[in-house]
Order: sequence, then C-alpha cells, then structure tokens
Amino acid sequence: MKIIHPLPLNQKNFQPFGKVISFAHLDHYPINQGTTERYHAISEIDVGDGDSKAIISLFRGQPFAIPFTLRLMERHPLGTQTFIPTNNQTSDQYLIVVSKPHLESEVDIVNNLCAFIASNGAGVTYNKGVWHHPLISLNKESDFIVIDRANMQNNCDEIQLSQQVIIDSA
Amino acid sequence: MKIIHPLPLNQKNFQPFGKVISFAHLDHYPINQGTTERYHAISEIDVGDGDSKAIISLFRGQPFAIPFTLRLMERHPLGTQTFIPTNNQTSDQYLIVVSKPHLESEVDIVNNLCAFIASNGAGVTYNKGVWHHPLISLNKESDFIVIDRANMQNNCDEIQLSQQVIIDSA
Repeated sequence: MKIIHPLPLNQKNFQPFGKVISFAHLDHYPINQGTTERYHAISEIDVGDGDSKAIISLFRGQPFAIPFTLRLMERHPLGTQTFIPTNNQTSDQYLIVVSKPHLESEVDIVNNLCAFIASNGAGVTYNKGVWHHPLISLNKESDFIVIDRANMQNNCDEIQLSQQVIIDSA
Repeated sequence: MKIIHPLPLNQKNFQPFGKVISFAHLDHYPINQGTTERYHAISEIDVGDGDSKAIISLFRGQPFAIPFTLRLMERHPLGTQTFIPTNNQTSDQYLIVVSKPHLESEVDIVNNLCAFIASNGAGVTYNKGVWHHPLISLNKESDFIVIDRANMQNNCDEIQLSQQVIIDSA
C-alpha cells in the first residue's frame, strides 16, 4: 500500500505537470481605460495538430473526501486540459493527483505520483499527456469550466491501478 | 440621445452574437464513472488562421452602475472572446452591450445595439468580429476567466461614439 500526502498548489511545484491559473500570476496590467486588470496569458490552450478545435464545457462534480483511494489514472495525449472552479468560496478545495508524462507502466506511474490541494479559486492546465486522476471535488458538489479538445477520439488513455494507493492528509 | 433597455441573457436572444455558457445547456451526460456531469461543448474557441494560439487570462473588473453611458465599442476580427465569471454569487450581474458584426459606421453600429443582463454565473462567447463593449461588472468588483487570441495585433478595432447612448433599466 502506498500513501501520498498532498502539497499546496502553486506555480513552482506544479510546473512539471502544467500551469496554475490564479491571480498570483505576475504578468498583469490595466486595460479598458484602467477599469480592468488583465492577468495575461496564464495558460496556453494547445489541442494539437489536425482538424480538432478547443471547446468550453462545464463539469459538475460530486464530492469526495480525504483519505481518497486511487483506482485509475488517465491522460490526453493530443491536448491540454484546463479545469477552473466557478463557485469558488475561499474554503472550497479540490484534489489533484498527477504523474509525469511519457510513462507507460503502472509501476512507473505510481512511483511518480504527486498530489496537490487546490483552493482559493485556483485552476489548473494539465500539459499534453500528463497522467492525472479525473475530477475530485472535496466535501461538496463543485462546478468547473473545462477547456479541452473537441474530438476525444484517440485522446484518452486510461490505466486501472492494481496497487492500492491512498491520498491522505499530511 | 438613445436609450437601450437590457434584456435577460439566454441562448436564444444572444444567438446572433455568440454563445451563452451556463448549466442551462441541453447536451450533458455523466462521465468519470458517473461522478461528474459534463455539459459538453457549450462554446467553441476559434482564434483564426495563422500562428496564434488561444490563451487563458483572468480579468478583475471594477464595478459600474446602471444607467451606464456608452462611449465606445470594440471588436476582435480574428478570434472569439469568452468571458466567464468566477466569483459568482447568484446575485452578481454584469452588463453586455453588443452590435452585429460586419457593420462599419457608427450609425449602423448604434442602430443595431442590444444590451443584456447576465447573472447566475452565465458566461458568454462573442463570435469573431462582434462589436461589444469592454467588461461592465455591475455593483461590485468581479473576476472573469477570459479566453481569447494570444496575439492581439490587428485583432482589436475600436470606435468612439459621438452620439449619446445610455443603457438604462427597463
């Protein structure tokens, strides 16, 4: 049995897996005659080559609790995938579980797992091919904006875990 | 002087200008072993041809009040632009002012103005080239996710209005 303790989410520790979308972003400037502050280009959207487009969807996720038992991981080799919470009370949290891209075996994926607790309305973009767990809202039903590739054909690999992995608080 | 009364925002009345991003979207289905409901592909992102990418930014908008005096309109000919509120209390509202694309004169733009009140967390995508006013949060500072074209060069036309136009409640 493997136990993983989640870290707080920030740009530095999430860097190997993608981008954190939050007002902590450093590149910002006034627009609209000074009435709006633009936190600019926090994340690119890259849905790969071919004829697919990027789309915007909404996800409504049922709540889970920590400790959380991991049963599978998935990845989208052809495109980034972005999650941004919309009904974000400061206290709302969700759990992110990722592993590095370019790994193929369960042993390698499990050995490189990292978990993060996202809060304060922060979103994330998973880089292309980053192994991640599907949405894990914590404690209450939560709504997310999701930006990903329109055509999911050949764009979702899934691996069932035979080893027991538990995400538990530090 | 021209006075425009805003309409409630819904997919049907906003159709000439773009898409409304909300949980009223009809195409939804369960994913993630039934733990998430996906409201699918509510809006496409289209940043046009060439070498530009779509990006995600955050906007923090200062508050305005109704009646609101219109001084300018702008359009982005090379790409869609999406606004989705993130700190959405049910009571939060913002004001949308649009006109049809492919209009070039102030008289035509003003004669085709429509205003909408957005609430309940609904977002909007402006189609390519749709004339719109910059962000108008109502009553309190508000945060938005914005998805648009990375390269704004040649992608923002602006027109100053000489005619007085006021958006006022019905």
